[in-house]
Amino acid sequence: MNLVLLYPSDYIATDRITLNDYRYHHIVAVLKAKVGDQVRVGDLNGRMGLGCILALTDEMLEMSVACDTDPPAAAPLVLVLALPRPKVFRRILITATTLGIKRICLINSWRVDKSYWGSPCLESTEVSKQLVTGLEQARDTVLPVVTLHKRFKPFVEDELCQIAEGSSCYVAHPHNAQPCPQPARQSSDQMVTIAVGPEGGFIEYEVEKFIECNFTPIEIGPRILRVEAAMTKLASLLVK
Amino acid sequence: MNLVLLYPSDYIATDRITLNDYRYHHIVAVLKAKVGDQVRVGDLNGRMGLGCILALTDEMLEMSVACDTDPPAAAPLVLVLALPRPKVFRRILITATTLGIKRICLINSWRVDKSYWGSPCLESTEVSKQLVTGLEQARDTVLPVVTLHKRFKPFVEDELCQIAEGSSCYVAHPHNAQPCPQPARQSSDQMVTIAVGPEGGFIEYEVEKFIECNFTPIEIGPRILRVEAAMTKLASLLVK
Repeated sequence: MNLVLLYPSDYIATDRITLNDYRYHHIVAVLKAKVGDQVRVGDLNGRMGLGCILALTDEMLEMSVACDTDPPAAAPLVLVLALPRPKVFRRILITATTLGIKRICLINSWRVDKSYWGSPCLESTEVSKQLVTGLEQARDTVLPVVTLHKRFKPFVEDELCQIAEGSSCYVAHPHNAQPCPQPARQSSDQMVTIAVGPEGGFIEYEVEKFIECNFTPIEIGPRILRVEAAMTKLASLLVK
Repeated sequence: MNLVLLYPSDYIATDRITLNDYRYHHIVAVLKAKVGDQVRVGDLNGRMGLGCILALTDEMLEMSVACDTDPPAAAPLVLVLALPRPKVFRRILITATTLGIKRICLINSWRVDKSYWGSPCLESTEVSKQLVTGLEQARDTVLPVVTLHKRFKPFVEDELCQIAEGSSCYVAHPHNAQPCPQPARQSSDQMVTIAVGPEGGFIEYEVEKFIECNFTPIEIGPRILRVEAAMTKLASLLVK
């Protein structure tokens, strides 16, 4: 945890908070902070700054906080991702958040196991937990927006064009694809939408549907990466 | 598993193999292959090609194999990595292998927990297992070389210069650092050595030692990535 994320309910005055949950334990046990020490804090969806520990007991702590710095700029990137298996899903949400991605659409695909859609990890409290972990790791405060799209065809036909509007669109696909463009080709504020398939990739029909939505198939090298590495590589290459 | 890795002991004739271990189970249960079907295979540290299933029983299979294609070119990259905690370590070995990295030096650092050096995951059979998983995922055959360097100072003073010789050297470090160079600046065969610290980063003394070895400190954005994502981002940006 490189930043302690604060919620409105933590505040007991305009510049004062108390903590008694995992954040308290992290500050005491990992950071080994004492009264008078400063820790990095940030208001959820707000500014970041420093907190100064005013009081510390066996159960809670009190801090004065001053949040006066904007969080880092969002990565100009929309991620369209075939729903991964639950174990991988949690980690991918964290990683995507640390990469600064603020819009994640989880979609169905022919190779997505139907059972994944029933996983408890898709519940919004569970999703938020991973996103918050990502923000605390990355030192960011702005919660990504994650949406679930359980039916592929209605998503690409009715929703995708609007979501991807005005952005350069790419679908990761190893066949008949062009090499991933260099970041220098992108201006820093050009939005990019990338679609990443499941293990095994999108099927041809799905790639065709993306192409109909003006997505360009791109490949990212001769080796087949796991979804998390593919996503990280694409985000690194396509966004400055 | 996108490629079935073969060992000399699998061969019963120059172009014929039998399998009865996890590879057999993968071919039968996941690929659902039948007699006459072809599967991608590759000789460990050798060429890749196709195997054709000749016989299939409840316990084993026999294939004729023809390996006539070179594996993908190695990424011209040496990874110097502070030893991660065991759980993360396994995954990082797999990811580094899928990125085509063929030389990995695991080093000590002030923020590496001493207990990590006693983990069973460092045993060479355990390391090989992860590397093989990476090759099977990536569709590659060339096993990376992984070395352990339990003492930081002797490593950077006596070994690092030789390991990094002739390469462009970078250490990931968020302070007083220049932005990560663009891949276009690298010619495709220029070797690059990257040093990636532990969670929390290298300490200043360690960064100074890297600088003495001609490493340039570089930063990779305003957010703090976890080690696996940082490694993937650096490998993506620094190597064409």
